[in-house]
Amino acid sequence: MPLKPQIEHPEAQNRRVGFAVVGLGKLSVEELLPAARTSEHAYVAALVTSEPDKGEAFALALGLTPDDVYTYEEFGRLRERSDVEAVYIVLPNSMHREYALRAAEAGKHVLCEKPLGVNVADAQAIVDGCAQAGVQLMTAYRCQYTPEHWAARQAVQEGRLGKVKLLDSIHVQVEDDPEVWRLRLGLAGGGPLPDVGIYSLNTVRFVLGQEPEWVFAAQHRPQDDPRFTEVEESVSFMLGFGGGVIANCLTSYGALKTSTLRVLGEEGSLLMDPAFPYQGVKLTIEDEAGRFEPSFGSHDQFAREFDHFAQRVRSGQTPWTPGEEGVQDHIIMDAIYQSARSGQVVQLKKVEGQDVFRGIPPEVPGQE
Amino acid sequence: MPLKPQIEHPEAQNRRVGFAVVGLGKLSVEELLPAARTSEHAYVAALVTSEPDKGEAFALALGLTPDDVYTYEEFGRLRERSDVEAVYIVLPNSMHREYALRAAEAGKHVLCEKPLGVNVADAQAIVDGCAQAGVQLMTAYRCQYTPEHWAARQAVQEGRLGKVKLLDSIHVQVEDDPEVWRLRLGLAGGGPLPDVGIYSLNTVRFVLGQEPEWVFAAQHRPQDDPRFTEVEESVSFMLGFGGGVIANCLTSYGALKTSTLRVLGEEGSLLMDPAFPYQGVKLTIEDEAGRFEPSFGSHDQFAREFDHFAQRVRSGQTPWTPGEEGVQDHIIMDAIYQSARSGQVVQLKKVEGQDVFRGIPPEVPGQE
Amino acid sequence: MPLKPQIEHPEAQNRRVGFAVVGLGKLSVEELLPAARTSEHAYVAALVTSEPDKGEAFALALGLTPDDVYTYEEFGRLRERSDVEAVYIVLPNSMHREYALRAAEAGKHVLCEKPLGVNVADAQAIVDGCAQAGVQLMTAYRCQYTPEHWAARQAVQEGRLGKVKLLDSIHVQVEDDPEVWRLRLGLAGGGPLPDVGIYSLNTVRFVLGQEPEWVFAAQHRPQDDPRFTEVEESVSFMLGFGGGVIANCLTSYGALKTSTLRVLGEEGSLLMDPAFPYQGVKLTIEDEAGRFEPSFGSHDQFAREFDHFAQRVRSGQTPWTPGEEGVQDHIIMDAIYQSARSGQVVQLKKVEGQDVFRGIPPEVPGQE
Amino acid sequence: MPLKPQIEHPEAQNRRVGFAVVGLGKLSVEELLPAARTSEHAYVAALVTSEPDKGEAFALALGLTPDDVYTYEEFGRLRERSDVEAVYIVLPNSMHREYALRAAEAGKHVLCEKPLGVNVADAQAIVDGCAQAGVQLMTAYRCQYTPEHWAARQAVQEGRLGKVKLLDSIHVQVEDDPEVWRLRLGLAGGGPLPDVGIYSLNTVRFVLGQEPEWVFAAQHRPQDDPRFTEVEESVSFMLGFGGGVIANCLTSYGALKTSTLRVLGEEGSLLMDPAFPYQGVKLTIEDEAGRFEPSFGSHDQFAREFDHFAQRVRSGQTPWTPGEEGVQDHIIMDAIYQSARSGQVVQLKKVEGQDVFRGIPPEVPGQE
Repeated sequence: MPLKPQIEHPEAQNRRVGFAVVGLGKLSVEELLPAARTSEHAYVAALVTSEPDKGEAFALALGLTPDDVYTYEEFGRLRERSDVEAVYIVLPNSMHREYALRAAEAGKHVLCEKPLGVNVADAQAIVDGCAQAGVQLMTAYRCQYTPEHWAARQAVQEGRLGKVKLLDSIHVQVEDDPEVWRLRLGLAGGGPLPDVGIYSLNTVRFVLGQEPEWVFAAQHRPQDDPRFTEVEESVSFMLGFGGGVIANCLTSYGALKTSTLRVLGEEGSLLMDPAFPYQGVKLTIEDEAGRFEPSFGSHDQFAREFDHFAQRVRSGQTPWTPGEEGVQDHIIMDAIYQSARSGQVVQLKKVEGQDVFRGIPPEVPGQE
Repeated sequence: MPLKPQIEHPEAQNRRVGFAVVGLGKLSVEELLPAARTSEHAYVAALVTSEPDKGEAFALALGLTPDDVYTYEEFGRLRERSDVEAVYIVLPNSMHREYALRAAEAGKHVLCEKPLGVNVADAQAIVDGCAQAGVQLMTAYRCQYTPEHWAARQAVQEGRLGKVKLLDSIHVQVEDDPEVWRLRLGLAGGGPLPDVGIYSLNTVRFVLGQEPEWVFAAQHRPQDDPRFTEVEESVSFMLGFGGGVIANCLTSYGALKTSTLRVLGEEGSLLMDPAFPYQGVKLTIEDEAGRFEPSFGSHDQFAREFDHFAQRVRSGQTPWTPGEEGVQDHIIMDAIYQSARSGQVVQLKKVEGQDVFRGIPPEVPGQE
Repeated sequence: MPLKPQIEHPEAQNRRVGFAVVGLGKLSVEELLPAARTSEHAYVAALVTSEPDKGEAFALALGLTPDDVYTYEEFGRLRERSDVEAVYIVLPNSMHREYALRAAEAGKHVLCEKPLGVNVADAQAIVDGCAQAGVQLMTAYRCQYTPEHWAARQAVQEGRLGKVKLLDSIHVQVEDDPEVWRLRLGLAGGGPLPDVGIYSLNTVRFVLGQEPEWVFAAQHRPQDDPRFTEVEESVSFMLGFGGGVIANCLTSYGALKTSTLRVLGEEGSLLMDPAFPYQGVKLTIEDEAGRFEPSFGSHDQFAREFDHFAQRVRSGQTPWTPGEEGVQDHIIMDAIYQSARSGQVVQLKKVEGQDVFRGIPPEVPGQE
Repeated sequence: MPLKPQIEHPEAQNRRVGFAVVGLGKLSVEELLPAARTSEHAYVAALVTSEPDKGEAFALALGLTPDDVYTYEEFGRLRERSDVEAVYIVLPNSMHREYALRAAEAGKHVLCEKPLGVNVADAQAIVDGCAQAGVQLMTAYRCQYTPEHWAARQAVQEGRLGKVKLLDSIHVQVEDDPEVWRLRLGLAGGGPLPDVGIYSLNTVRFVLGQEPEWVFAAQHRPQDDPRFTEVEESVSFMLGFGGGVIANCLTSYGALKTSTLRVLGEEGSLLMDPAFPYQGVKLTIEDEAGRFEPSFGSHDQFAREFDHFAQRVRSGQTPWTPGEEGVQDHIIMDAIYQSARSGQVVQLKKVEGQDVFRGIPPEVPGQE
């Protein structure tokens, strides 16, 4: 990934959308800040963190000044920063709502990490707050912005696989730090489901462009593992779509990293394996003629997210994965937990149509 | 696969177990008869078929005579053939019972294709009849006799993957002949589930060595497809095991051939892909150190089945996959259909212990 | 591979070409006799062997009688067998000439294992003898009859890779039996080069359809290894073609089995790996768009050889790989050894044109 | 790759080795500058470029000031910069000598891109100049600093493959810009050989730890291609080592990107494919037991180079790939061109011993 000097095109700089990155955890530091440097339409203009020293160090590394670093207490002062047009919220799930609403109130557009909140009500409040404030809201589903996932979606939607019958997805990894906020129900809203299982859920919905009609789920929480006193270790869930299409999904914090998606059609199938890494997603499409592994230019998934949202901010159009897309995953995840608790199938409200919760597609990433 | 002249060692010939192959369909002709030629402990001594001309042709190809060919009406005359010690039943599922019982009454040991019958009662009748007649009975689960599947089982049971958490298996293929007996409920006892889905079910049970405690399933039967007027097109089923282990499985007659098994453990995972072909099974074991794809000498799965059963006939010991193993799959498949119809979880009778329905293991196939 | 009863279609039997298989070594027993059973146009009508007991056993296994078995001394009596129209010579290389000429004299068409002889003069004598006797002669280059190799050739010749620049091929295996005839110079004519290296040589010529203009080679014979007292252990050879195309090849009896072919073009490349096994050849074609692994139906390479030669016998046309094709490889192998001895480049006589030493192509195997 | 703020640990900063990067071409901008940010022992303290505006932009992006940017005319002023202890020369090959010697005269240690010069005399002059000036010199062979290449070397040297017999390497790519300096003989010293073929040459020497005794080569320069008026399009070369080990290599500017290395031993083989990319090197080791694809943590090859040289600067020890390692490749490349011109084998001066031209190994990268 090239080092892109931010002042190379000062005139471009003026038109780029300035973001305040809220939260300097691992994802921000290892992925988002480097990605922002390669974005064409966005740049990082401010940092919000509880550790001012760390913030200042990164500010300098980004060519910013100590004045561009804010504590959470000082968040409201971003209002004065006309160059900060948007925030990217990278906080524990339970804090998304507060900072999204504070940002909205300050007139800033909101790009929020997934899951949007900790449950449906929480996520809906974010949507409502942003709508009332008249700011844009996007849920940061990076796998809806990669050329590999768009190629998979195209294979499905353009009939390359014939009629799709079944899907299967796995996203598991080991979470071995008992202290991490992701294992606290109050902070995370759940265990592996809203953190990694959501990729399976969201990607199945994305490639089909349709919404499930029912769910069934089972979960497991070991009795004797200090990591899982509040949240589940594993969830298996089944999603029923119209026309008899069924998707089986597995997620866990207790198994070695695996991430896959299979789509089985009557004339072909596709496999993404690994399906959800930051880089190195591999897609294989198989039919009677053989196996094809398309080639994709290198790209940065996070830069694509930045770019897409910045473009929507400029155009005023709804982003491809707005808040409503995030709410819909919460509706389904709430149903998954309900099913896992009750042992019963949970019916979902029927949603007709294609890509009902999505906005304007990103620029042809599948064509790269 | 070498051509092994049957008379090469006449003395060995005397000790080998002579089989009557009952049914000359595709499986018999393309797999079983060639396999029998490479078996060390078994040979084909007679053929039973409704097409005497075809039977005679194959008899000659096998070095037999027209006198070694019987019609179904003449089946009883096998009683007189002391050199025929066993039968291999390769008929539509609904005919297994009749011919297994007729063979048992004639004092012949019975190797029967999977599924053992068309439902639990049917399969249990075969077990009971063979027990009363004092003959051996084996369900022909070829994937419990391959070195690849044994290596997978060993990786699971010897802890190479750490504690196993989740499993995932797919076995789908396109059945496009609306006239085939496999699509008639009365002849097959079901659709893809007892034909190909049974591989996922049986192999999950085999690698874990344990029995599921509950099942949930959903199925799909398209309304307008002449192939699926009697049986389902697809079934998705979830199996719950002790300790929170869950297996997700997909089976279908409507999707391009795919066969996989994944086992996800806390320290490693394994993938069989393809998992269930006659040849070319591929096993990959992955852990933090990397990926390992063990090498296996070439072998014939069907010859292994013949050999194992012939050895058990000689030793009088229970074969590894006796009739009880076949009945247990029917118990679970009946529960899967019940769940799919009711939309409810179906609890199974708890079965404690390891390999409860299995006999004496085959010779170290995993060591080859 | 299905068991195909030879008497199934007696009328077809009459039109099939009857072969005498000369030599019952491992290749005959494990590959050729089973393959013959699946051939559409050929069948085995007689066996020639120095071990009559073994011969009779195989005769019976093939549905023949002891009268169909001949010793080498009795070879001449094949003349009387009008049903034996051709012989397949599967003997140590140094014996090809004698039996090819004896067969030709007896009016039998000759299918001869590769290499055709032990050197150019030897191979040319076979060509001349068959021509004089007016019988067909084919060198058994099975890799010129597989759909995978034809697909590779098509990718090269139809421009899918752009202009071809370079090729690279490896064919090595361990020969650990010091007693085997392949390690005797007088019997084999060389070491790994005429046995396995010839696959690289022949396949490079086949996919290009052109002849090399010069060769350079180096060889190694360890001083202290009892296996290599007469022949080399390894040969590395470089082949120069028109237009600056160069092929690098490696062959050895001292390294774990590897067989590959790469063709590097300006717009794409192809890889066969493994390139030369009896089954499981894998072809991958790569270009800017991605990697494509075409799918091929299962088939028997040896049955294709039988079929092709039987069809040419019937039609009277020159087979695709006639004796001249075998002589050409000997010309090049002689030059390779000469270069390896001298350390000098050896120029070959320039051969213009495409497929100069080949006859009528086999039936569209690339289309399967 | 995380953004590592350079001022995070000011005390560490003081101990890190400051580099001036000389030349801001594609490699510097896309790989070296980002890599330097992740180095533990090195940092970029100055930039030398003919484009001051570009230099200043990158300086700011790196947290430097316009005062840290120098033109080539101002190169001598680096002498005054005590914080600049070393230079990394990333210029056209023919300019390495001038700037290496100017740096040495200024008392700066020299890390120089490969190839070290444009021929033996040129490279030797760099070695001599640095020795006289008492500064360290390292040739930037990044593939001698990756865990994947060290794992390959270990497999060879520790006998995992048994006795090594043959090697094969390919490194080709399309160079389609007729204007690029790499196609000017005076600037580059050759065509693909010193640019990409050198990877095959250097890596074969690295994994064996030994030096070739002779070379043979053939090259091709198309008559009608404006790109190849001065340098070759392709070179095929054969390297002969002690004990009869032979390596075949292919390099070209005219074929779609491919980079491989195979090592064939009597008990196993290894394949690197791709072998030489900046990231995504894949190693597979195969033996009778199966195939093993070891897993390596993510790492930056260029950061490893920076780190290793910085550590050697601090310790005063000879780096693993000193100037002598670069000279040795030139000796062999000169012989390759000589052989290609003459059509004769060229004998090299015999070099006994292991890793004769190398210094102190880098920190156990193979153990990561």
